Order: sequence, then C-alpha cells, then structure tokens
Amino acid sequence: MENIPYKIYLTEEEMPRAWYNLRADMKNNPAPLLNPATLQPVTAADLEPVFCRELVKQELDNDTPYFEIPEEIRNFYRMYRPSPLVRAYCLEKELGTPAKIYYKFEGNNTSGSHKLNSAIAQAYYAKQQGLKGVTTETGAGQWGTALSMACAYLGLDCKVYMVKVSYEQKPHRREVMRTYGANVTPSPSNTTAVGRKILEEFPETTGSLGCAISEAVEAATTREGYRYVLGSVLNQVLLHQSVIGLESKIALDKYGVKPDIIIGCAGGGSNLGGLIAPFMREKLRGEADYRFIAVEPASCPSLTRGKYIYDFCDTGKVCPLAKMYTLGNGFIPSPNHAGGLRYHGMSSVLSQLYDDGLMEARSVEQTKVFEAAELFARSEGILPAPESSHAIKVAIDEAMKAKEEGKETTILFGLTGTGYFDMKAYAQFHDGTMTDYIPTDEDIAGGLATAPQIDK
Amino acid sequence: MENIPYKIYLTEEEMPRAWYNLRADMKNNPAPLLNPATLQPVTAADLEPVFCRELVKQELDNDTPYFEIPEEIRNFYRMYRPSPLVRAYCLEKELGTPAKIYYKFEGNNTSGSHKLNSAIAQAYYAKQQGLKGVTTETGAGQWGTALSMACAYLGLDCKVYMVKVSYEQKPHRREVMRTYGANVTPSPSNTTAVGRKILEEFPETTGSLGCAISEAVEAATTREGYRYVLGSVLNQVLLHQSVIGLESKIALDKYGVKPDIIIGCAGGGSNLGGLIAPFMREKLRGEADYRFIAVEPASCPSLTRGKYIYDFCDTGKVCPLAKMYTLGNGFIPSPNHAGGLRYHGMSSVLSQLYDDGLMEARSVEQTKVFEAAELFARSEGILPAPESSHAIKVAIDEAMKAKEEGKETTILFGLTGTGYFDMKAYAQFHDGTMTDYIPTDEDIAGGLATAPQIDK
Repeated sequence: MENIPYKIYLTEEEMPRAWYNLRADMKNNPAPLLNPATLQPVTAADLEPVFCRELVKQELDNDTPYFEIPEEIRNFYRMYRPSPLVRAYCLEKELGTPAKIYYKFEGNNTSGSHKLNSAIAQAYYAKQQGLKGVTTETGAGQWGTALSMACAYLGLDCKVYMVKVSYEQKPHRREVMRTYGANVTPSPSNTTAVGRKILEEFPETTGSLGCAISEAVEAATTREGYRYVLGSVLNQVLLHQSVIGLESKIALDKYGVKPDIIIGCAGGGSNLGGLIAPFMREKLRGEADYRFIAVEPASCPSLTRGKYIYDFCDTGKVCPLAKMYTLGNGFIPSPNHAGGLRYHGMSSVLSQLYDDGLMEARSVEQTKVFEAAELFARSEGILPAPESSHAIKVAIDEAMKAKEEGKETTILFGLTGTGYFDMKAYAQFHDGTMTDYIPTDEDIAGGLATAPQIDK
Repeated sequence: MENIPYKIYLTEEEMPRAWYNLRADMKNNPAPLLNPATLQPVTAADLEPVFCRELVKQELDNDTPYFEIPEEIRNFYRMYRPSPLVRAYCLEKELGTPAKIYYKFEGNNTSGSHKLNSAIAQAYYAKQQGLKGVTTETGAGQWGTALSMACAYLGLDCKVYMVKVSYEQKPHRREVMRTYGANVTPSPSNTTAVGRKILEEFPETTGSLGCAISEAVEAATTREGYRYVLGSVLNQVLLHQSVIGLESKIALDKYGVKPDIIIGCAGGGSNLGGLIAPFMREKLRGEADYRFIAVEPASCPSLTRGKYIYDFCDTGKVCPLAKMYTLGNGFIPSPNHAGGLRYHGMSSVLSQLYDDGLMEARSVEQTKVFEAAELFARSEGILPAPESSHAIKVAIDEAMKAKEEGKETTILFGLTGTGYFDMKAYAQFHDGTMTDYIPTDEDIAGGLATAPQIDK
C-alpha cells in the first residue's frame, strides 16, 4: 500500500473558485456557431432570445481563461462537491496490473451524474436575469434530473421534454424529476408546433434527443420569461464542467501524481471536456504531455466515424448550426443501444482538439462495456452508469496493456455517474439478451444526408 | 455562515479502528436470547450452527467495550467511508430555524444505505472461517444488496430470500443483487420446508420478513459450509454499525459541536443503535447528556405500542427467542406501508435502553414522512429513502419547535440511505394515492397472540 488514500477529498478552501475556459488556450478555436438563416457566425443578439445573457457571453468568449464561480453556485457545489478522486486499489488488484488507476467519481449526488455542475450554473444565471423558468430536453434522464434539482433549489420553474422511449421505460427517473417539482412531457408531444409536425410525419416515433431539443427551444422562445438550457455540447457547458478536471488536478498535485493517460466517455462531450480541461491546458502550453482518449459507443460513433462538418444540432433545425464531428442530424442510434451517449454530434471544442490530433478516440461495443461495468462494480463497489462504463472499459484495456508491457502507467478516468436507473439494461446483459450494433456506412451516410452543405 | 463546512469528512487516519460495544457500559444488559427448545439462555454451541464463530462471540459478549476492526474490513470501509457528516445549512435556511441541523449521510454507496457496514463484517468472518457462502433475507432490498456487494468482494456465495412482494415490486433491486452475483429467491418459496409449509397454509401470501428469515436460516443450516447472517436487530449488527456514531462523534468533536438531540429511524434498530452508541456511552457514564429519539412508522410501532416481552424473531419459530419491544411475530404491517421499518420487533439493546428511560420514541405517519422527504430533497439535494425520512420528519419537527422557542438547539440525525429504488412510493405520494394506516389495538393484540408466554 502506498501513501495515497483510497479517496482524495479536497477541503472546501481547496475547491476551485473559477471555471477554466479551454478555448482561451486553443491555437485553433472551435468553429463559431452559425445563424441558420444567414449562415453567418451567431451574434449575442441572435442567441439571447434562446439563452440567458450571461450564458451567451460565456458561449461566445474564446479569450477569457477563467470565469469566477459565483458564491451562490459555490455554496450549491458544497452540498455535493468536492467529488472524490478515487484510487482504484481494488480494481488494480483484481486486474493484477502494475498500472495505477484513478477515477473522478461524479455520481454521488441525486442526479446521479456530473450534469448537476452545469445545471446549477445555468439555472443560477436564469434566476439572476429575473426569468420565471427554463426548458430543456433529456434522454436517459440525468440532465433533466440535475436541472430539476437546481431549479427546485432556486425556485425556478422547470419544463423538461423527455425522449418518449425513455419517458416510458424510465418512469422512476421521471418521478425523481417530479419530486423536484419539474414538469415532464414525453417528446415528441403536441404541446409544440415542431412536435406536432414530427408526430404527423412519424406517428410511431419514440423520439430522439434532436427532436426533444427542438421542442424545448420552441417552448422557451414562445413563452414570456423562459430560456432554453442544454446539458452538453455547448462551450458554456464544458466551461462549467471544468470543475471536474480542476478538482482532479488539485487532488493529484497534492500527492505529486501525474497521469499518463486521461480517459472519458463522450456523448456530447460535457464530461470529457470538463475532465481534460486543465490537463489539456498544460499540453497546449507545452508544459506537460498527456494522452487523452475519448470513448464512444460503437453504435453512435461520431468522432471515430462521423464527418467534421457544419450540421444542425436538432431535428427541427431551429438551433444554430455547429461545426462538429457528426453522424448527421438524421442519425438515430439503433433501439438496442442502452443509456445515453446517443447524440449525433460532438462538442465543437472537442471536435477541434480531435481534428488537431491532440486527442485520440475509440469506440466500444456495449456488451463489452457491461462486462467492464460488472467487473468494476464487483471490485470497486460502485454500480456504474452505462455511459461511464465506456471509460471503464478502455481504462481496463489500458491497464491490461500496461500489465503486458510491465509498465506502471498512471491512468485517470472519469466515472460520470451511477447506474441505478439503468437496471433494465443490466438485466438484459445478465439474461444474455443484450446485443451489439455497429451502424453500416450506409446508415451513417443516411444520417448525413440531411446535413447542410456549407463550405467552411 | 459559520466556520463549519457543509460536509465534514474524516481523513483515513481519523477513521475508527475499533467498533464500540454499547453493552459494556449498560447498567442493565439486554436480556439474553433463549434457546426455543429449552427456554434457557443460548450458548455459543447453540448458535454456532447458525452464525459464524466470531460473530457468535460478538453476539454474546456484553463486557468487551471495543472490538478491533480487522484490516481487510477497514480497507473495504475506505472504499465508501468515511461517510460525510453534513451541516444542513440549506434546510435550516428553508425552515428559518435557529436550530443547527447535522446529518450523518450513509447513502453514498451502491447498497444505498448503512447496511454495508455490517454486511462486510459478517461476510469477512464467514470467509475467515473458511465457509462457502452465507444466506439471508431482505425486505426492501438494502440489506440484500449490501450483502451481495460484500460477498462479491470476498468471493463468497450469497443466497438471498427476498420478501415476495418486494421481489415483484422491486425488480431493479433484485437486478443490482444479480450484478453482484447473488442468488435471489422470492419468499416464501418451495426451496425450503418452512417455505413449503407456509405456502400450503397461506398460498396467497406475499411474504414477510419473519418468513424470509425462517427460510434463510433453514437454507444455511441444511447446507454444508453456509451460515446465516442478519442485517439488523442482533447485538453484533449494532456493534458493527457503531462506526456510524463513532465517525459522527469524531467529526463533531473536531469542531467542538455537541448535539442536544440525536434522532434516528428505527426498524430493527441497526442504524439507530449504531448512531447513538458513543453518545449513549457518555450518557451512561454520566459524562454528558443527550436526548435520543427513535422514530418508527405509525403503521409498525413496536416501541411506542408494542409489549416488552420474549417473542419469536421469525415466523417459522426456528430462531432463538429475544426479549424486545414487539408487536408479536404474527404482526404484518398493512400493505399500504411503503419501504422498510416493517419488522415486528426491536433490537434487545434498544428495547432495554428505552425501557430504562434512556431514550424516547415517537411514531409518525407516512404521508407526513414523505412531505418531509420532499422538502428535504428540494433543499438539501439528496433524495432520501422512506426509512431515513422518518428521522427527517422528527428532525424538522424539533427544528420548528426550536424556532418557536427561539432556541439554537443542535440536532443530529441519521440519514441512512437514498430512495432511488422507492420511486413507486414517491409516485403514490405525488399522485395523492398514498394513505396512512394506524393499526387498531385489536390488530396488535392479534399479532401478539402467537407470542410465547414466558415469565422473564
């Protein structure tokens, strides 16, 4: 046993007082969002009907390296942060690896994931602007739960459009949101024009994130005193999520530990972008080197098989266009795909870093992901979310490679959340009825067919 | 804001190295278990076919004040302990009370409750004795999950008899246990003689804890290399759970805080007995004074309405007799009762303390409990288990009394777990279909009708 505890907690004084904006150190900035009407870079005026003013500033600011975290948000963070940085002694022993494995565990809060870090920030700025409430979409439900919690705390109204298939399969998630006073509507719904249009065209649809986004945006922009908020993909979200990486780095620095590899699951990129932020800063400034690995589902492989182009962010095409690695806004993962990480695109920041060769990406199949999840649960005690388990899978792969090579590789991965509301997927895994799915090239070409043709 | 952080964590060095045995300081020891055949106090030889040797020693030892926690158990504790002692700043603000409210939060582990503290201890001693596995019963599922996790960690087989109604209503809990490799059987089942007998007599029964205990005991005693383990009621369980109180006291002492009132929910008594242990020690020794309040459901009020007599611990009457506050082994809470805290009896240690006037007891109705739970969730972020919410309800009552009286009362309560697997009950609460139930005197007399008549 070394002198490093199982869990490293920061004191409240050690907790970060500012978020870090990775864009300020990027040589190639992420491509700007485009106004879908003019195809010109969006302005603050374009965005303010949709997002809160302060968040628009954060979204468009590629220069300011640090944003102070307002005191009320820091107080909220104190209810569930610092999250522990865990040394996976038991997993290391189980694998018999000389690798040293650390994970930053973001699941010890009722939303069950890291999403709360940005939810409270976005709700806070809405409150500060004097708004009545916010609207959003949710897929697997973590984001919707997180936003409900933040809104309950601040006394804001919260309207959640939940992808219909999740709404039906996860009544308990929905009930948690109700406990926090949120209004939850299955999407597509007939409460919006875009929902009615989609229902007319595809009456049997079980919904998608892209569609729920369109509904939530419409619900915000057609109501007095409401704005739309989003749990991933956006620059502002990665900014707020930098608290994950900042805490991790402070904790590791306290013990003089420098990771060789940093691994995170990637759907829209909120967790990965936050986790790697301060480490990528050092890499960009030539102060240190790290390997970064984004892990995505083989069934929704935007980085590893998507195209780096401008695309619509939502099905209804009401949102700005983003340049990102995308499978096309028409892409919907196969129904056998469990859990989140099902968005067709990827954060512009991460897309640019990947395109610049600063980050690797890997895709993994879900039965392998659940194998890793079960091994992890049995040795480390924590029942991981399917999303997080993508990172676990690759962390284990790298630890086994270190074993083969006899190397004491230091691995840090993001354990974004817990799987308590994903037991149906675990049951399928146990029953042997879980299947894998890899989209064909034609599937992806089909998804991309409706992407706009923009030469930027 | 005072100088006390939102969450007080101990360092690994500050964590307790020994459990505290409250019996060593009790003036009146709890009454001994009786052998059901001879009605004489049980001997180690009587108990060893059922329980592991080391646990039998702990069960019968009323003298040794401290038991060292073996290193392997301390290492396991390090995976999820220390648990935070939280200052409920947000709840205090919501209530506008001058009271200072603290809670010890035991829910930040996958079992979702404090049960893991004893599960790992009991599994460890079984392993040490060279056994193949253990059997147990579970009602709401926390204990079964905790034991599954401990057994997975140590490589022991784990057979869980789950009360049938819970097995059917909580498939997700069952699936968590499967993730940890446990074998889960709905009880009553035809895998045991006692189960078959009960099924023959009551084919429509949805099971009870008392019945599942009988099955688990039979399954252990009729198999080579197995022993039975129990998650509450027993002296050994309270011993292991003393880690809750010991950590709480170390954390409070660090900041010079002395609680006036200590509140815990009480079903079999595992959490309450553990939480109060080191504080009750001071009270017993005349070193300090505290008010202790046990909170139980109005629908299963063993302390407040039961009789202090010898009773059977299980329906099949295969277990030793215990002197305890009991509603009678024939008592089954009304089906509208949600969650745990449904055992007919109460730990002998707590029963004796209550009988000696060292502790108060209060019963609360479940709709009031869920009101308190929702208020707590919205202000403190954590979605509490129904069981834990009994303590929240009375903590809030006491905080409001402090407000009326303008007193800065310091309150400590045990937040034993999270409610992620209790969303059906929350849904009933939200839908207005949750009802209360208070058993009539006749109900209780009926439950007591089958208690043995022993003049001790």
